[in-house]
Amino acid sequence: MSNNIITISREFGSGGRELGKRLAELLGYAYYDEEIVAAIAQRSALAEDYVNQVVERRIRSYYPITIAASFLATPDDSTYAINRSIYAAQAEILEEMAKKSDCVIVGRCADHILQDYKPFRIFVYSDMPSKVARCREKGEDGNALTDKELEKKIRAVDKARAQYYRFYTGEDLNDKLCYDLGVNTSGLQIKPLATAIAALVKSRSETE
Amino acid sequence: MSNNIITISREFGSGGRELGKRLAELLGYAYYDEEIVAAIAQRSALAEDYVNQVVERRIRSYYPITIAASFLATPDDSTYAINRSIYAAQAEILEEMAKKSDCVIVGRCADHILQDYKPFRIFVYSDMPSKVARCREKGEDGNALTDKELEKKIRAVDKARAQYYRFYTGEDLNDKLCYDLGVNTSGLQIKPLATAIAALVKSRSETE
Repeated sequence: MSNNIITISREFGSGGRELGKRLAELLGYAYYDEEIVAAIAQRSALAEDYVNQVVERRIRSYYPITIAASFLATPDDSTYAINRSIYAAQAEILEEMAKKSDCVIVGRCADHILQDYKPFRIFVYSDMPSKVARCREKGEDGNALTDKELEKKIRAVDKARAQYYRFYTGEDLNDKLCYDLGVNTSGLQIKPLATAIAALVKSRSETE
Repeated sequence: MSNNIITISREFGSGGRELGKRLAELLGYAYYDEEIVAAIAQRSALAEDYVNQVVERRIRSYYPITIAASFLATPDDSTYAINRSIYAAQAEILEEMAKKSDCVIVGRCADHILQDYKPFRIFVYSDMPSKVARCREKGEDGNALTDKELEKKIRAVDKARAQYYRFYTGEDLNDKLCYDLGVNTSGLQIKPLATAIAALVKSRSETE
């Protein structure tokens, strides 16, 4: 029997990462996100800072989707090649993780990369007021920015994530058919929600 | 403490109705869909056939959304008035149901009508091949139609449902923020899925 894999895609500020961590704890699964980046850095011998920069989706360093998709010559093939190689290394490591044990993986297009492993794919989203409140709670730029600025930042991160996802998978991050479960965290505490989702996951694997 | 209300919106052929029935059984909740229509018919003394015709979303009998929304004079106010009164009667009955006991309600804009009761709002969807397969299983026109024709019918029903929803609620049936949980039934059996969702619902109400 293959391992149970849960992948989590999420909107910025939706609490998806916390949900992933709590699910992993409750279910006794391994949990991955930044660890993967570190592993990539070690492997590909690229500076971790640079990897972080790419993985944190500063999308401007990618070529536009239309150009990449049509395989036109690009003005700076080396940047493109480095980005592709980071993605490839990341995909390889995700596969190792998936083979090693039950795990929860947040982000990193894991739902797409690990599709052959039939992961349980969760998409976590939230209304804007909840996202703003969560960002402030975590103190992520929260105090320095006005609500409007924070909303703008949240939209920008989500847009960049969607571009990243489309660039590498050719799919729409917001297409509900890319997920098995969509979870709206608006106004909710993540802890009790994680307990409920864990109950679903357990029941699901028992009845399979 | 108020009753636990679960509302289910669904794509045609996604198994949403079966999921609703099974959830109600597993949780010991009341289950409603057609019963509501019958109750409306009795109350408003309109022929049940006519009610069915309206509720089954033969949307042509409604005025276009743009016209209705702008309150222009319409060529046939009586049809409009009858449709509105059916919706109002339906809303009233849904409220009675919600006050009476824990319940699962499939369709009928219940998520919107009962929003003050804080229902747990589930949206059930599926990819097209699964929807076609489910329609054939249930024998709903399945044998008489080609796959292409059946797909066309499924799309038409979903479109009409979305129009109905927008007409009465002013909201987008496909907006994920209208739901607490999105459930993808592609390629799945509904029975084990219902067990898993019931586990989530139970855990959710325990931790509240």
